[in-house]
Amino acid sequence: MALAFSLGARGQGQCWPNPAVGCVLVKDKRIVGRGWTQPGGRPHAEVVALQQAGEQARGATAYVSLEPCAHHGKTPPCADALIDAGVARVVSAIEDPDPRVAGTGHKRLHDAGIVVETGVMAKQAAVSHRGFFLNRVEGRPALTLKLATSFDGRIATATGESQWITGPEARRVVHAMRARHDAVLVGGGTARADDPMLTVRGMGAGHQPVRVVCSRRLDLPLDGKLAQSASEIPLWLCHGENVTDATRAAWEATGARLIQVQIGPGGQLEPLSLLQALGEAGLTRVFCEGGGALAASFLMAGLVEELVGFTAGVALGAEGYPGIGAMGIDTLGEAPRFTLVETREIGGDVLHRWERA
Amino acid sequence: MALAFSLGARGQGQCWPNPAVGCVLVKDKRIVGRGWTQPGGRPHAEVVALQQAGEQARGATAYVSLEPCAHHGKTPPCADALIDAGVARVVSAIEDPDPRVAGTGHKRLHDAGIVVETGVMAKQAAVSHRGFFLNRVEGRPALTLKLATSFDGRIATATGESQWITGPEARRVVHAMRARHDAVLVGGGTARADDPMLTVRGMGAGHQPVRVVCSRRLDLPLDGKLAQSASEIPLWLCHGENVTDATRAAWEATGARLIQVQIGPGGQLEPLSLLQALGEAGLTRVFCEGGGALAASFLMAGLVEELVGFTAGVALGAEGYPGIGAMGIDTLGEAPRFTLVETREIGGDVLHRWERA
Repeated sequence: MALAFSLGARGQGQCWPNPAVGCVLVKDKRIVGRGWTQPGGRPHAEVVALQQAGEQARGATAYVSLEPCAHHGKTPPCADALIDAGVARVVSAIEDPDPRVAGTGHKRLHDAGIVVETGVMAKQAAVSHRGFFLNRVEGRPALTLKLATSFDGRIATATGESQWITGPEARRVVHAMRARHDAVLVGGGTARADDPMLTVRGMGAGHQPVRVVCSRRLDLPLDGKLAQSASEIPLWLCHGENVTDATRAAWEATGARLIQVQIGPGGQLEPLSLLQALGEAGLTRVFCEGGGALAASFLMAGLVEELVGFTAGVALGAEGYPGIGAMGIDTLGEAPRFTLVETREIGGDVLHRWERA
Repeated sequence: MALAFSLGARGQGQCWPNPAVGCVLVKDKRIVGRGWTQPGGRPHAEVVALQQAGEQARGATAYVSLEPCAHHGKTPPCADALIDAGVARVVSAIEDPDPRVAGTGHKRLHDAGIVVETGVMAKQAAVSHRGFFLNRVEGRPALTLKLATSFDGRIATATGESQWITGPEARRVVHAMRARHDAVLVGGGTARADDPMLTVRGMGAGHQPVRVVCSRRLDLPLDGKLAQSASEIPLWLCHGENVTDATRAAWEATGARLIQVQIGPGGQLEPLSLLQALGEAGLTRVFCEGGGALAASFLMAGLVEELVGFTAGVALGAEGYPGIGAMGIDTLGEAPRFTLVETREIGGDVLHRWERA
């Protein structure tokens, strides 16, 4: 099953809106088939593994990191494929919580005379499929918030210099994290200040995540790198209602996709509406890289599933830009808490990962 | 030699102004004596180990974490004690860099026919004795700066609430760190806001480090915990020149020791003068626990040897108190850099230690 999760992870960031599933077929203690959800979401993991196994699938055990689908979508249901191939036993990590699916895949297998075991490595499955589950159940993607800061929590000097606070090894890890998400998200201030590409570089990856920029007024430079590359690499712009037709037309001409989002009482894009719009567009895993105001709005709304910090051994002082903007918090009891899941050194910087407490 | 360092560390915080040295005597592959610098600085490590070994010292090898002294201070020189005891070989980690000492201890041993090897674990010795060396060579103690912050580098909420950002395990490690330093140092703002004791608690330690508070105008509450306990646990107050005789007298009546320090161009206590005054008073290892303004002044002056961060999984937002105050830094090139030496989880918080780059 651990191998099924490793295989499934290969699809993360590339198979949305489908879940990144892994499947291993074992017969007579030998692996006869391995599969994971392919880029674009098809074929599914089970189908890939069954094709690889061929006749060897008959009588085999299938380990799958998520309940096999039982409904007719763009492909026939995987449960039927497993039945048709003569698989004897299916070990499944977790039920698909989508109320239209929950348990029907397992039931169909069981009804066909296949031995079904569920709940194996269920905790890891909940983490692995968090984005897909959130999308199905709450209509929003899982949000990872990443901050690369100085020892004192600053993301740039008073003059806006931020390249580079952390070292090349940490930045490489960030690119690997981008590649495992469906989309990279930043606020308009960051897009204006850094003129970033927001692409995955140096990882040998052909696939690029969607680049999403939140800009209430769409006041982003049309001659910036994002605009210039919008025809080749997906660029989605989330904006408020008060955008002129001319601005809208200019951005649509670049190839960017415009997504209108509600404005919250504070005048910024309302964070839940924003994520719901991205969820409706099919995103399951979104990687937010700031800036401070956007980070604060997600944290205040309780919409951050995972926090990733990179801390460098440099002190920038109180004039530096804060990694998290104003949150209106007076007491520690109001402050959102996270649970540490990992800390390690990355090329002289500290990586620390936290999950919603 | 590693054992000698472990033994020596037992004296840290308790034997200033003397170095915390460890000594192990080995004869015929058996340990026949172990010693470390005793509280108050006497007897020295070598003398303790020789007493333990008795006649077994004859022909033994002595492992010492610092060059044995050769000058007559309050005790006879340790080099003579090793010679008199008939030790055959001395393995020493590092020369004492004090120009009045450097090499004379090793030379005296060598001249007496003892085999002398030096430089074994010299790098660890430089770290272990950093405070003592700095005091002898530059007249100031080694400063460790500790910050316990939120994920976004804040030490308190906008309303000043700071108890507790980190968990009980992290706070216990802080008490252990206090115990290994000669003094705990805070700024006046922290003393006023938190009314702290700054003592070592829960470690079973009888010994308490000196408590040092920097307050330019000595505007601290005379009914606070520090003032109330000054007659039992040492309290040193560093202040500027414009303090009234009445204030001075009131604080002296509590039992506190007053230390006048130069005022810098920014109006605050000049950080180098401050540390030199503490060095002259005999301190070798000082543990600074903030606040932000004091931390910034030491960092800007390049006087921080070690940075210790505790990061908690809580977000406080930009209104929170910054862990490091204004530093006047515009570019990353000006910002002080540190090298990571350790990161690990402590009860759900992240500990990260850095040394001057």
